[in-house]
Amino acid sequence: MSLSIKDDEIDIVIGALRPDLTSFMNEWRTIFSRFHLIIVKDPDLKEELKIPEGFNLDVYKKPDIDRVVGTSTSTIFSGYSCRYFGYLVSRKKYIISVDDDCYPVKDNKGILVDAVAQHITNLTTPATPFFFNTLYDPFTEGADFVRGYPFSLRSGVQCALSCGLWLNLADYDAPTQALKPEERNSRYVDAVLTVPARTLMPISGINIAFNREVIGPALLPSLRLGGEGKFRWETMEDIWSGMCVKVVCDHLGLGVKTGMPYVWRNDRGDAIASLRKEWEGVKLMEEVVPFFQSVRLSREATTTEDCVAEVANVVKEQLGSKDPMFARAAKAMVDWVKLWKSVGSST
Amino acid sequence: MSLSIKDDEIDIVIGALRPDLTSFMNEWRTIFSRFHLIIVKDPDLKEELKIPEGFNLDVYKKPDIDRVVGTSTSTIFSGYSCRYFGYLVSRKKYIISVDDDCYPVKDNKGILVDAVAQHITNLTTPATPFFFNTLYDPFTEGADFVRGYPFSLRSGVQCALSCGLWLNLADYDAPTQALKPEERNSRYVDAVLTVPARTLMPISGINIAFNREVIGPALLPSLRLGGEGKFRWETMEDIWSGMCVKVVCDHLGLGVKTGMPYVWRNDRGDAIASLRKEWEGVKLMEEVVPFFQSVRLSREATTTEDCVAEVANVVKEQLGSKDPMFARAAKAMVDWVKLWKSVGSST
Repeated sequence: MSLSIKDDEIDIVIGALRPDLTSFMNEWRTIFSRFHLIIVKDPDLKEELKIPEGFNLDVYKKPDIDRVVGTSTSTIFSGYSCRYFGYLVSRKKYIISVDDDCYPVKDNKGILVDAVAQHITNLTTPATPFFFNTLYDPFTEGADFVRGYPFSLRSGVQCALSCGLWLNLADYDAPTQALKPEERNSRYVDAVLTVPARTLMPISGINIAFNREVIGPALLPSLRLGGEGKFRWETMEDIWSGMCVKVVCDHLGLGVKTGMPYVWRNDRGDAIASLRKEWEGVKLMEEVVPFFQSVRLSREATTTEDCVAEVANVVKEQLGSKDPMFARAAKAMVDWVKLWKSVGSST
Repeated sequence: MSLSIKDDEIDIVIGALRPDLTSFMNEWRTIFSRFHLIIVKDPDLKEELKIPEGFNLDVYKKPDIDRVVGTSTSTIFSGYSCRYFGYLVSRKKYIISVDDDCYPVKDNKGILVDAVAQHITNLTTPATPFFFNTLYDPFTEGADFVRGYPFSLRSGVQCALSCGLWLNLADYDAPTQALKPEERNSRYVDAVLTVPARTLMPISGINIAFNREVIGPALLPSLRLGGEGKFRWETMEDIWSGMCVKVVCDHLGLGVKTGMPYVWRNDRGDAIASLRKEWEGVKLMEEVVPFFQSVRLSREATTTEDCVAEVANVVKEQLGSKDPMFARAAKAMVDWVKLWKSVGSST
């Protein structure tokens, strides 16, 4: 891990959707125990949390959330969105966030992957969004820029977001998982790459890290499906937030990387039972992708907060009348920026 | 390899810059021997070619080139550009082209990589340039589209070009190689991905394959450095051609993939001795990249030939006065389209 980053510049945020975190925490112990953890309990979860000893952590539950943001706002943090409360109350420069059904993996050589170190390396080395390097991230050890890469672009830009991947149960939607119930991802791709500017992608919230000071307010809970459930494939909050954060990064000249680190995702949920709910999200993307591809922010939008507010306005104008879900998302984005400023996390 | 492709739909084109192809051909024998080979001898090369027995091949030398295109035109095929003569005279649907200092590799599991099969798989499965799939090429076995990928974009588009990579001596420029004389690429990245639309990349001619019927005329010898030599890092013809082909693919809604297959590149050349020559190419890219990023073709350009002619016009208008090399490149592009049509390879 980059020597210039101190352990206390990092918060690991865990949204607890299941009460028993024992095996999750124990599996991650060697990697997580050096760092401060923020565990946010899904406000809908009734059972008491079970967390093993030996970690430096703060746990936030529904009463804590109510106290900080008020009871009327706290509903935005239900389900997978509980993690955003952790983003809001963190005061650290870097946040790493992993779903509670993910475990550490071994790489192609059988060595345990330090996902935290890989995310921090991704975030602390430059990104190269303006020209594609065919040998992937040129700042990886043993790699470089290939012949023809303009020297003026080789210093790159600041990397704001690192998106990790998943072995075993990949992050497919319910229809894909239902069609291929036996499919598991076993391909460990030994690469990190910058997603080019103006290229959108389906950012997953399962395994991500970001520079909170730079891009924090753009990771937000705003799009909630009517029938949203407690399985990943029943949610779109991270996909929507990901479109937003990529558009903001492109506008501000920041980079987004994808690839390593991997985490191991265990099976849970019944894909076929989720199918009914998922179609709502699936149809949504047909509107959402062309919309975000067309969004251009003004030169006046110079901070992440400005950018999110502008995106919210365009969402309201262009999508608001198509589905009340979009109007609600636009309002939630505006509210989020206010909340971010008032809770004092503002950059 | 895709069952629907017959061996006789493929030409393997080798530009011979060295007289002795014995070890090259023997190393590739198990992979190449099923296919028809076109070997084009660099017209500047004086020595006789040494080619081992047992291949189905045609060899083209300076007199053959003179006969087909005339003595005044044949100079465009000197050095690494000799391969383009092979592209011109091929009548096959797919072309695979590998530099004569490249050898087959083994993958992470120690299995010999069939570079032809991988290139053909890349070309015969769809590309997805309009939205980035975080699990790489969704048409790879065991992969799929991740959650949030719009269903309307999942059929993808035709893939026109497949760009392979290099182990051992990577395709660095002379300054990078001179700065890191010991650096070798040992990272075998088990992935193929579509380069997003409107994202430019430094396409290398070392190890590529393409659909000649669809995009053939856009792979062309046109930019020649004043001090161009016989080492890869002294050339820019493929980088320029690659910018052109990517712009044409983007305009025509075709895809470009990069990643596997790898080839093993052996060391040759003296990077430090090449440094003087290379700076010319390095400086060039500072003009060339922003130029190609800004090129937009007209709706009237509906064929690859049309597109190349339009790009040539814009090169002449916008770059022609900056450096006579660009004016010559523009003329060479126009000439190439005429040659492609007259030699009868036109689509």
